[in-house]
Amino acid sequence: MAVLGNKEYFKGIGEIPYEGKESDNPLAFKHYNPEQVVAGKPMKEHFKFAMAYWHTLCGTGGDPFGPGTKQFPWNASSEPIAAAKEKADAAFEFITKMGFEYYCFHDFDLVDEADSLAESEKRIQTMVDYLKQKQEASGVKLLWGTANCFSNPRYMNGAASNPDFNVVAHAGAQIKIALDATIELGGQNYVFWGGREGYMSLLNTQMKLEQDNIGRFLNMAKDYARGQGFKGNFFIEPKPMEPMKHQYDFDAATSINTIREYGLQDDFKLNIEVNHATLAQHTFQHELQVAANAGMLGSIDANRGDYQNGWDTDQFPNNVTEIAEAMLVLLKSDGLEGGGVNFDAKTRRNSTDLEDIFLAHIGGADTFARGLLVADAVLQKSSYEDLLDKRYASFASGAGQNFVDGKLTLLDLYQHAQSNGEAKQISGKQELYENLLNQYV
Amino acid sequence: MAVLGNKEYFKGIGEIPYEGKESDNPLAFKHYNPEQVVAGKPMKEHFKFAMAYWHTLCGTGGDPFGPGTKQFPWNASSEPIAAAKEKADAAFEFITKMGFEYYCFHDFDLVDEADSLAESEKRIQTMVDYLKQKQEASGVKLLWGTANCFSNPRYMNGAASNPDFNVVAHAGAQIKIALDATIELGGQNYVFWGGREGYMSLLNTQMKLEQDNIGRFLNMAKDYARGQGFKGNFFIEPKPMEPMKHQYDFDAATSINTIREYGLQDDFKLNIEVNHATLAQHTFQHELQVAANAGMLGSIDANRGDYQNGWDTDQFPNNVTEIAEAMLVLLKSDGLEGGGVNFDAKTRRNSTDLEDIFLAHIGGADTFARGLLVADAVLQKSSYEDLLDKRYASFASGAGQNFVDGKLTLLDLYQHAQSNGEAKQISGKQELYENLLNQYV
Amino acid sequence: MAVLGNKEYFKGIGEIPYEGKESDNPLAFKHYNPEQVVAGKPMKEHFKFAMAYWHTLCGTGGDPFGPGTKQFPWNASSEPIAAAKEKADAAFEFITKMGFEYYCFHDFDLVDEADSLAESEKRIQTMVDYLKQKQEASGVKLLWGTANCFSNPRYMNGAASNPDFNVVAHAGAQIKIALDATIELGGQNYVFWGGREGYMSLLNTQMKLEQDNIGRFLNMAKDYARGQGFKGNFFIEPKPMEPMKHQYDFDAATSINTIREYGLQDDFKLNIEVNHATLAQHTFQHELQVAANAGMLGSIDANRGDYQNGWDTDQFPNNVTEIAEAMLVLLKSDGLEGGGVNFDAKTRRNSTDLEDIFLAHIGGADTFARGLLVADAVLQKSSYEDLLDKRYASFASGAGQNFVDGKLTLLDLYQHAQSNGEAKQISGKQELYENLLNQYV
Amino acid sequence: MAVLGNKEYFKGIGEIPYEGKESDNPLAFKHYNPEQVVAGKPMKEHFKFAMAYWHTLCGTGGDPFGPGTKQFPWNASSEPIAAAKEKADAAFEFITKMGFEYYCFHDFDLVDEADSLAESEKRIQTMVDYLKQKQEASGVKLLWGTANCFSNPRYMNGAASNPDFNVVAHAGAQIKIALDATIELGGQNYVFWGGREGYMSLLNTQMKLEQDNIGRFLNMAKDYARGQGFKGNFFIEPKPMEPMKHQYDFDAATSINTIREYGLQDDFKLNIEVNHATLAQHTFQHELQVAANAGMLGSIDANRGDYQNGWDTDQFPNNVTEIAEAMLVLLKSDGLEGGGVNFDAKTRRNSTDLEDIFLAHIGGADTFARGLLVADAVLQKSSYEDLLDKRYASFASGAGQNFVDGKLTLLDLYQHAQSNGEAKQISGKQELYENLLNQYV
Ligand SMILES: [Co+2]
Ligand SMILES: [Co+2]
Ligand SMILES: [Co+2]
Ligand SMILES: [Co+2]
Ligand SMILES: [Co+2]
Ligand SMILES: [Co+2]
Ligand SMILES: [Co+2]
Ligand SMILES: [Co+2]
Repeated sequence: MAVLGNKEYFKGIGEIPYEGKESDNPLAFKHYNPEQVVAGKPMKEHFKFAMAYWHTLCGTGGDPFGPGTKQFPWNASSEPIAAAKEKADAAFEFITKMGFEYYCFHDFDLVDEADSLAESEKRIQTMVDYLKQKQEASGVKLLWGTANCFSNPRYMNGAASNPDFNVVAHAGAQIKIALDATIELGGQNYVFWGGREGYMSLLNTQMKLEQDNIGRFLNMAKDYARGQGFKGNFFIEPKPMEPMKHQYDFDAATSINTIREYGLQDDFKLNIEVNHATLAQHTFQHELQVAANAGMLGSIDANRGDYQNGWDTDQFPNNVTEIAEAMLVLLKSDGLEGGGVNFDAKTRRNSTDLEDIFLAHIGGADTFARGLLVADAVLQKSSYEDLLDKRYASFASGAGQNFVDGKLTLLDLYQHAQSNGEAKQISGKQELYENLLNQYV
Repeated sequence: MAVLGNKEYFKGIGEIPYEGKESDNPLAFKHYNPEQVVAGKPMKEHFKFAMAYWHTLCGTGGDPFGPGTKQFPWNASSEPIAAAKEKADAAFEFITKMGFEYYCFHDFDLVDEADSLAESEKRIQTMVDYLKQKQEASGVKLLWGTANCFSNPRYMNGAASNPDFNVVAHAGAQIKIALDATIELGGQNYVFWGGREGYMSLLNTQMKLEQDNIGRFLNMAKDYARGQGFKGNFFIEPKPMEPMKHQYDFDAATSINTIREYGLQDDFKLNIEVNHATLAQHTFQHELQVAANAGMLGSIDANRGDYQNGWDTDQFPNNVTEIAEAMLVLLKSDGLEGGGVNFDAKTRRNSTDLEDIFLAHIGGADTFARGLLVADAVLQKSSYEDLLDKRYASFASGAGQNFVDGKLTLLDLYQHAQSNGEAKQISGKQELYENLLNQYV
Repeated sequence: MAVLGNKEYFKGIGEIPYEGKESDNPLAFKHYNPEQVVAGKPMKEHFKFAMAYWHTLCGTGGDPFGPGTKQFPWNASSEPIAAAKEKADAAFEFITKMGFEYYCFHDFDLVDEADSLAESEKRIQTMVDYLKQKQEASGVKLLWGTANCFSNPRYMNGAASNPDFNVVAHAGAQIKIALDATIELGGQNYVFWGGREGYMSLLNTQMKLEQDNIGRFLNMAKDYARGQGFKGNFFIEPKPMEPMKHQYDFDAATSINTIREYGLQDDFKLNIEVNHATLAQHTFQHELQVAANAGMLGSIDANRGDYQNGWDTDQFPNNVTEIAEAMLVLLKSDGLEGGGVNFDAKTRRNSTDLEDIFLAHIGGADTFARGLLVADAVLQKSSYEDLLDKRYASFASGAGQNFVDGKLTLLDLYQHAQSNGEAKQISGKQELYENLLNQYV
Repeated sequence: MAVLGNKEYFKGIGEIPYEGKESDNPLAFKHYNPEQVVAGKPMKEHFKFAMAYWHTLCGTGGDPFGPGTKQFPWNASSEPIAAAKEKADAAFEFITKMGFEYYCFHDFDLVDEADSLAESEKRIQTMVDYLKQKQEASGVKLLWGTANCFSNPRYMNGAASNPDFNVVAHAGAQIKIALDATIELGGQNYVFWGGREGYMSLLNTQMKLEQDNIGRFLNMAKDYARGQGFKGNFFIEPKPMEPMKHQYDFDAATSINTIREYGLQDDFKLNIEVNHATLAQHTFQHELQVAANAGMLGSIDANRGDYQNGWDTDQFPNNVTEIAEAMLVLLKSDGLEGGGVNFDAKTRRNSTDLEDIFLAHIGGADTFARGLLVADAVLQKSSYEDLLDKRYASFASGAGQNFVDGKLTLLDLYQHAQSNGEAKQISGKQELYENLLNQYV
């Protein structure tokens, strides 16, 4: 049920119903039916859809060529705490009208940063109390929290990787406060996003020192949070570039390498963002698979990029095939470990109606729902898994099985090849697989 | 001194002299002066320039839109061994006329693959004997060997990552033979290049099984070679894509992750190729730095890509600034561990004169020589290192030093920040560093 | 009805039926129902699907990293004309089994080039006679012909743009012969594809002379064909790069500029290829719209690229949304002027079963059929066109209409703005449009 | 001589001297020697270096991930005209200390936009009077003016291409005022930069109407300015994308096509920006050559992009080879027609010292100076032009000359080829050209 504050911000829009695919109502779900059971659990449990505080409440549409375009009614007050509470009211109105159960935030999404660390901490604490009440009233939960260690000019040279220890320390303080807030709000996970961890120019950068500092820093943060009783996951969100020329957490494989190098593998997993995947010249499903292979598929930042543009457009998901392939990865692995599907997406700068925010989230949720239904149908109804098993059948018995079990040497392979002659040519049948998937889209 | 076979293939071209930068002779080095000492050792020891057998002797200019254009006189014979010996003669004539001391090959660069594994092995052995004589006559050494497990149609679905164990076994046999040849020829290193290890479509791929198979395979190969007394390094050469849609060894960080995951870190390093770096959206110097940070900077495949084209153009290096920045990384780390600078580069399809091969290698060698001289001058004559040290000075004493030494907790950072207030803004001065480098180019 | 030659090449595969979307038969159309009327005409007339001789019959799977993988049974004969006839038999068997009505070719797809121009011409003429019989027997028609002026090493520096007039003349001769063949076979159009018209290096190129030579050349070809009674269209097929570093016909706008510059606008239109569009950083639908706006939307080369790979992968179309957006452009403009939908696409190198060629074309045809059905539904059933009309309504009356009619000056705009004050903010509602399209996908 | 206002903003920095390449002074030119004659005229006349008001005075370092970092002392006043005058003082202090003779601006670089058009016009007029005095005092001239029709939220859907006529009219009014200002200040040219002319989504866009509206609009603006006595050039600045998903003025060829389509060829030329060239997958020199071929090479926006990042980084030029190749195009054509070299470049967000602005411009000017010297040396001292002439010699006599003169038909080419047989293979010698250029870098 929609939970409002002192006023209703999204007037004329009620709770978004599921109406099925024949509906022409733009303000209804056509595919996302929260309680519908797919592959053994309700859709809402597969996804744990979350609203992203920053885009949805704070993103007014500024870009490098112009300021914000959107007049958000919850931004009227000039008093920071009053404004922050109005924003929180709007947030929970939105989340509950959407029928979502989760949200995510950066520390200074909740309330404007103050002039001193002490005052900022106080503001955060005030808002944590307020949000706790909103959570209780609505049943909405915190999927994850994080700290914005990239917008403030102090972080222009990085946060944990800053060449100046004083800035590193400030980032540490900020993350301590953000961890406290996350824990207090029962946050299920905590995310580290690279922000400005990377370099603008390799010429003026001691990369090894900076990366080692990040490793030390992540360990300190983890130790602190565990000491405070935090039981959730830590996530790293890979991104290849932007705002820095190079971001240290380039992609899933790079981030897993970092996690291994600094001994974080028992506590850290990945938060995979669609647009960050494509900026790194990967598909979204590739990045999910890489994370799943390492047992580190934690959470998803749902959005999409533009294949002709080279920056992070963070558009809402609308590519059913892309998401269906992603859901195949999820259904075939263990799903998301601890995380959910956070709409890290923004309406376009020229989408200035408040209604547009709903339309965008509805389109995104429906896209994920369709993707899940397609993937489930492919696995349940088609010959897909049989085809795949057959393709790799040589490793399921005989010499192939011995190879997999580590019982062969290079000489064994040599002798096997010598005595077996040329292998039979076997088509990869990619077009068959593609048609098969399309049959269910 | 030039070592010829029965005939001279590059008539009219003698040994390439160093004539200095005032020379207008296109067939002279203007900067590469092999014995000139820079940063403590002769240029030739910094670089260990190697000729790549495949491009230089075998690459006749075919591309997806047309067959080869180049008539190589050493390709006349239809008898495989005779043709292979002529090619070897041409190779050593070229290497010695260039004044290089190294070469690199794939197994079937040396001689055409036969119809059976046994016959192929025999051919390779014959050529190994022949090459040994050429090496002795010339003093030229084998920088590294490798196996071509990607051209033959049998590898169309991969080699070590093939879904069919019989193909995996064939690859194993081929690599066993290539290792034997490399060891017999005193090869200083052995390279694994991804070839077709990757996927064309994630839909028909069990990525985890394929990658685990690669891990097993690399361990088997390493164990075999060590058992045969091989003391050199193993290198993995990262490449992000092409021929496969996705190559498993995407970039340096990904490859280091693989090395760590499969416990290969004591034996494996990286062979970084310029064009593979840029295809992965990295600079060459970035990839070198990543490798150096992990203690895995083994060797270089020297070439360049085209920033407007999206495939592996393997052009000869000619960007002095790019190479100067690369040489800065090398001079500031421990240089190349075991490897050298292999010209994995080809003249353009329409560069059809035999002379063009010399011109191209001369341009490449001069580019590296200039890059080295520039980097050395920046380090010796300019304020570069002072600037850099000053930028990171806060980690060299006091709380910053404690942080680096692992003595601080997150709460310590919090308290430091609380008591020190806002950090002073410090310009990154990127333009100053860039001008400073340009002063020496 | 399937038209076979002396033997059946695709044994076990009959004519591909339409079975509807519930069918699990991989060798049936699920959406492409040739006679089904959509938007006023049968599907087959919207599309005029054509088989591309080069990929389907000649493409054996070679790539820069290995030779062909596919054993085509029609390639057995070593006698050129016998081989060519077998290939033609296979071609018409394939076309008629697919239920297509068109095909397209390059001159030397039909038969291998001979050692002399005279002999090549004779071979072509022999095959033209043979193909005429096959056309008559089957009712299949020639959508367009073209000349391969890029594969032969003579064209390594370009054809019409070659720095050597003798090569330009050879290209002229070849195109004369290809035009004769196209005319004789009743070809409905003739295509100029850039091939190697462009440059490898701007340093050794006189671009203006080369482009002027192309302009002269296209006019000569056009004049010759018109003189021979050819009534069809000439098409230019844009492509941004590959094989050359830069191709002169970069994209639709560039090609239209060329057409205008050299006075070819009454005879030339564009053949838009999906993968060439995306290599030029455009969407397919963008390129179609640019061509349609100029009245030059002639024909389509249907395929798709890979958004993570930077070369011309020419995969079969399978993205329904992409094609639906393209069909929206077609249905809202005048459709294809003279041309059709040619599958300029190839099965993957590792798709080595003959069956795969059918699967791929079926998937492609179904994708276009679904795209057409989606676009038609959007236009017929949804509010799409109303929304769009309303968005531009200010130009349909009053001052806006006067502006469109060219009746206003800059001062009129100034005065209008002065007296009307700030314009009302109007959302672009992109997400609404996207959801609306997705409702019909 | 440096022209200061009421206070000195760049204290401690005097007029930048030319000290030659041996100087270690970071605040001296090492190559740019304004009066040095190269290729027949002083460097300063080749370049006409201009300061860009927007980056240099207004760009405080904001990006999509954080606000501005730079505290500009001329931004202190909250009164718009007072602030604008301080900014103008700082601008002229900077220009004259740099020894430049030109500047460029957008209307609202000069002074903040007001709430009404009338008040904005008044502010602009006030500042025009003030700038006229500064111009007289300093001898500095206005290279070009333009209007910012993209930052204000009213332009979120485009300016001349806006779907709402009222916004089109507002843009017209703004451009009328900007033209008046440019004329009053003796501006030598007027630039149209696409801004938000393009689309965010093709789905909600009537592209043809929008482009026709732009065509009408440009004609109106031109007619107005000519009516007011403006004798300078109009420039269009191509850019492929950003801020819009697609910008209508994608690249030089596209823009020339637009100029031709709307009959603007007698008045319009192009302003080529380096970073916009590379975002369009072209080299800078390519775009210059395309413009020069059409007689439309008007002016240059000097900066550079980042080859690994996909957005407009607008970094300062520092690639000598890139600029040398550009200068080759300029020296071989007629140079810049009416325009100059405007530093449309910004210091990095973390380059926060005022000094950095000087360092950046010095590096940029030196890069252009070196590029010019290299290009001049190549043309004067090397065999470059001879090589190139020889490459195209077949068109300078005989049949080739007849071809160029338009005297041949396709049949003539056919007969030439028939009687001349296969053309001799001629190497393109790209590596020779590349080495030759590098000899002079
Ligand atoms: Co994200
Ligand atoms: Co993003
Ligand atoms: Co390589
Ligand atoms: Co390469
Ligand atoms: Co095509
Ligand atoms: Co293509
Ligand atoms: Co610009
Ligand atoms: Co720019």
